[in-house]
Amino acid sequence: MSELFVRTLREDPADAEVPSHRWLVRAGYIRRAAPGIYTWLPLGLRVLHKVEDIVREEMDAIGAQEVHFPALLPREPYELTDRWVEYGPNLFRLKDRKGNDMLLGPTHEEMFTLLVKDLYSSYKDLPLVLYQIQTKYRDEARPRAGLLRGREFVMKDSYSFDIDDDGLQAAYDKHRAAYIRIFDRLGLDYAIVQAMSGAMGGSASEEFLAVAENGEDTFVRSPGGYAANVEAVRIGSPAPLPYEDLPAAHVEDTPQSTTIDALIRVADDRQPRADRPWNGGDTLKNVVFMLEYPDGSKEPLAIGLPGDREVDEKRLEAQVEPGVAVPFGEEDFAKYPSLVKGYIGPGVLGEKNTSGVKYLTDPRVVPGTRWITGADADQKHVFDLVCGRDFTSDGVIDVAEIRAGDPSPDGSGPLQLARGIEMGHIFQLGRKYAEALGLKVLDQNGKQVTVTMGSYGVGVSRAVAAVAENTCDDKGLCWPRALAPYDVQVVATGKSAEIAACAAELAGDLDAAGIAVLLDDRKASPGVKFADAELLGMPTTVVVGRGLADGLVELRDRASGTAENVPLAEAVDRVVAAVRG
Amino acid sequence: MSELFVRTLREDPADAEVPSHRWLVRAGYIRRAAPGIYTWLPLGLRVLHKVEDIVREEMDAIGAQEVHFPALLPREPYELTDRWVEYGPNLFRLKDRKGNDMLLGPTHEEMFTLLVKDLYSSYKDLPLVLYQIQTKYRDEARPRAGLLRGREFVMKDSYSFDIDDDGLQAAYDKHRAAYIRIFDRLGLDYAIVQAMSGAMGGSASEEFLAVAENGEDTFVRSPGGYAANVEAVRIGSPAPLPYEDLPAAHVEDTPQSTTIDALIRVADDRQPRADRPWNGGDTLKNVVFMLEYPDGSKEPLAIGLPGDREVDEKRLEAQVEPGVAVPFGEEDFAKYPSLVKGYIGPGVLGEKNTSGVKYLTDPRVVPGTRWITGADADQKHVFDLVCGRDFTSDGVIDVAEIRAGDPSPDGSGPLQLARGIEMGHIFQLGRKYAEALGLKVLDQNGKQVTVTMGSYGVGVSRAVAAVAENTCDDKGLCWPRALAPYDVQVVATGKSAEIAACAAELAGDLDAAGIAVLLDDRKASPGVKFADAELLGMPTTVVVGRGLADGLVELRDRASGTAENVPLAEAVDRVVAAVRG
Repeated sequence: MSELFVRTLREDPADAEVPSHRWLVRAGYIRRAAPGIYTWLPLGLRVLHKVEDIVREEMDAIGAQEVHFPALLPREPYELTDRWVEYGPNLFRLKDRKGNDMLLGPTHEEMFTLLVKDLYSSYKDLPLVLYQIQTKYRDEARPRAGLLRGREFVMKDSYSFDIDDDGLQAAYDKHRAAYIRIFDRLGLDYAIVQAMSGAMGGSASEEFLAVAENGEDTFVRSPGGYAANVEAVRIGSPAPLPYEDLPAAHVEDTPQSTTIDALIRVADDRQPRADRPWNGGDTLKNVVFMLEYPDGSKEPLAIGLPGDREVDEKRLEAQVEPGVAVPFGEEDFAKYPSLVKGYIGPGVLGEKNTSGVKYLTDPRVVPGTRWITGADADQKHVFDLVCGRDFTSDGVIDVAEIRAGDPSPDGSGPLQLARGIEMGHIFQLGRKYAEALGLKVLDQNGKQVTVTMGSYGVGVSRAVAAVAENTCDDKGLCWPRALAPYDVQVVATGKSAEIAACAAELAGDLDAAGIAVLLDDRKASPGVKFADAELLGMPTTVVVGRGLADGLVELRDRASGTAENVPLAEAVDRVVAAVRG
Repeated sequence: MSELFVRTLREDPADAEVPSHRWLVRAGYIRRAAPGIYTWLPLGLRVLHKVEDIVREEMDAIGAQEVHFPALLPREPYELTDRWVEYGPNLFRLKDRKGNDMLLGPTHEEMFTLLVKDLYSSYKDLPLVLYQIQTKYRDEARPRAGLLRGREFVMKDSYSFDIDDDGLQAAYDKHRAAYIRIFDRLGLDYAIVQAMSGAMGGSASEEFLAVAENGEDTFVRSPGGYAANVEAVRIGSPAPLPYEDLPAAHVEDTPQSTTIDALIRVADDRQPRADRPWNGGDTLKNVVFMLEYPDGSKEPLAIGLPGDREVDEKRLEAQVEPGVAVPFGEEDFAKYPSLVKGYIGPGVLGEKNTSGVKYLTDPRVVPGTRWITGADADQKHVFDLVCGRDFTSDGVIDVAEIRAGDPSPDGSGPLQLARGIEMGHIFQLGRKYAEALGLKVLDQNGKQVTVTMGSYGVGVSRAVAAVAENTCDDKGLCWPRALAPYDVQVVATGKSAEIAACAAELAGDLDAAGIAVLLDDRKASPGVKFADAELLGMPTTVVVGRGLADGLVELRDRASGTAENVPLAEAVDRVVAAVRG
């Protein structure tokens, strides 16, 4: 410790929003170099290398072969798959001295596809799984939470290449099993959930989420085992209802009712229901967005959903990407005068209707459902407007917020909501990239067939923070043994030369026994040393201090907080036993 | 081999200029992704990791602590040291989505200095040596020779921090010793030479050059042990000569004598010497350059040197950087009408003279030397122009070419010239960066003192190519045992199932003995397999083939080309003995 390049800090960094970020900085594991860009200090780097080793071992174990791509890449391959544009401002772009467009790789589907195309040509060469552990770049709009959402980060990305769907499924299953082993070994509390494949394209995909209050992802779980990222939840549509006996639609004055709450008060007042008061779920809220695409084009989109639910921003984002949905502004309304702000209704919405604005509705809006909704005139709503009889939409969009207690799509009970950190993602890409880039091989009959691919990621640097987030407490970091930068911290307390010598000797003996030891040999008070030991978070601490007069040292377990005096002579064996589990 | 991601190529890559590049691509170790930017395939990556491990071990052994900086860096620190501008077009610059200037780090002096400033404050914290093994970026004007001069490459860079010069010297010496161990372990044929510190600033510095015909660096060695990069050679000035008895200078017509050869012919014809014919060394050639600086400014520079030597481009470059010296063009001459092309002389050169052009002369141009040189008038030269009597310059510049046989500056004999690849560079930076960035610590008397630094680099990815360059032959790669991706290649020849089974079993036994084995189990002819084994370059090959009928396998040594039949039962022991040396 007197020589280790570390300085523990008493103050939280100003930008720390989550505990892992706070503790990793205060304990001297990482240091910010720029927003979302961190330097790994010696302790942090040791943890990162341990994560890398675990990931590498498990990838090697499924027969994946390690390669390493550049981070600085030419534009052309990303042009062929449209991602040069689709990535929008998330891509770090630059020009080299000759004016060539280049980018810092956010992910490497294109490069892997081209490499395999370059070298392989036959079904005999497949199956193939390649991976790399590599530094990636994304120019996040809001880098945050330290390593959890950075702009330069380390990922393991792997890619499978198969001749047919069965092969892809096998590669996918092998990755899934490897990921379970990886996250088990990392000691993470995690969930495997159905996922959207997002910008990656492709079909089947699952995410591995570290369960964490501060996670950016929200996921749902049902008692029956359904689990999905909220973005991927697809609620079912109820069966259509008969509407022969329903009253005709009628427009009513609804002054000053631009909010759902106000509308319901007005409705209860002027058009009371016999059976119960109106509620938000009886209203059809129509929200208008402008979709802005990376190529600069724009397109309006109206979404109709029950008034008691909001549009979930992330669910919408996932459905419209690479477009970005921006709520209609005054200028937009000016361009679409048939849209009466606060009173927009299906009367004008739809591609074949007055406004021409594409109109998608929530899956709950099925034929036979009747609604109070905007009458497309100021301070007027229409009542008993029946879907299928009085209006139709251009299609379905499932972007309403998911609530705890909502029924699970698979009927396995009410949904619970939780938050998580995306740690791994496995995709069945299918043939999208192989087609775009022309990766074909000869099959057994000598026919050219397009290869089918999978893409699989693990957030390696993110794992350091996720584990810290999962395990830290109010005193600091608390590493699982598999990731601790050192197995044990030996703390010498007091000023006696005998204690210092004994601590150094014990550290030497532990080192000789193959234990990674951090010896706190600093001239500092016991209080400072104990606090630092807790902050740094090695699983075991050995205190050499006053007890030495009686031949005793103290073994402390960081996770449980327990302490025990043991004879000095037994200390090495006890620590070895603890470390080796 | 039937599963390994490798494809050996029969054709040289079109852009391969040097053997290491040719073989690394043909053997499937690396693959080009963009000019000067390479992907590491499985075999290449294994070699790279072995180099990294050797470097890491030796750095750890001198107490250096590993950290890891981002490659994507903010502009500001590089602004403070002027390197944002001084790097010129060699720096990859980009803007993030918020418009902030960023760069891809070519080297990290600034970041390390700021990190230590950030965390340390006392002499008690020093000495300190930090290092990283990290990906670096330089936008080379002419990326070439594969990994030897790339635009994205892996370096080990370390930095020492000391309170005083003795500390810096000790850190420098430790690095020098560590580098000797590293390059010895890599099996490189290398020389340690005095070096210019170049863009790094600072004083003492040495380079470790891998001796290689295709190297970009030229260095000199003397029988007495002097060794220096030509850029760093400083020839001595001879003692001034008496000039009292010399004839007065006289201008003569020298028609059509714009070259040294022509001038000598004219001189021998019109002004013959009594003792011997004139030679180029009797003439003073004045060459004019325009120095162009990264900030856009320009400044002319005239260099006077004996006419039998050329200005060495690299020696000049090293002296004027960050400026770039461009020979005077027509436009430049037009701006300086007193410079008569082909007849420029000291009569107009010099800051206080007619032209105002700064005039620096070769160290050999000392008082008392007499010259034939330009008379600053068309078709006229001046004879017997004596330095110190008839002209002076604004200073000395030592940029004339060095020739084999030139006397060593230290008097230790004639110089030999050789070429090499820069593999390592150790610098005593001194206080330049610490001063620019304000890195001070309190000394023992409580006084703020500026820290003194060293900077030390090893080309890690370049080492892979340099070793290949040093060891390859006309059949392919030939790895030293320390770097070979596999210790041994087991080749099964023929179609017999028995041979295939025996080869697989032998490979399994070797693997169990801790030997890294590559088994060539492909369905290919013996000729193809033998050629590939030589191309891939594992140190030992075991051939399981016809000899098996007699219980024999063949052991081949790649480097010596020797082959020996050994009983199958002894094969494992023999290979283990060969591998363990």
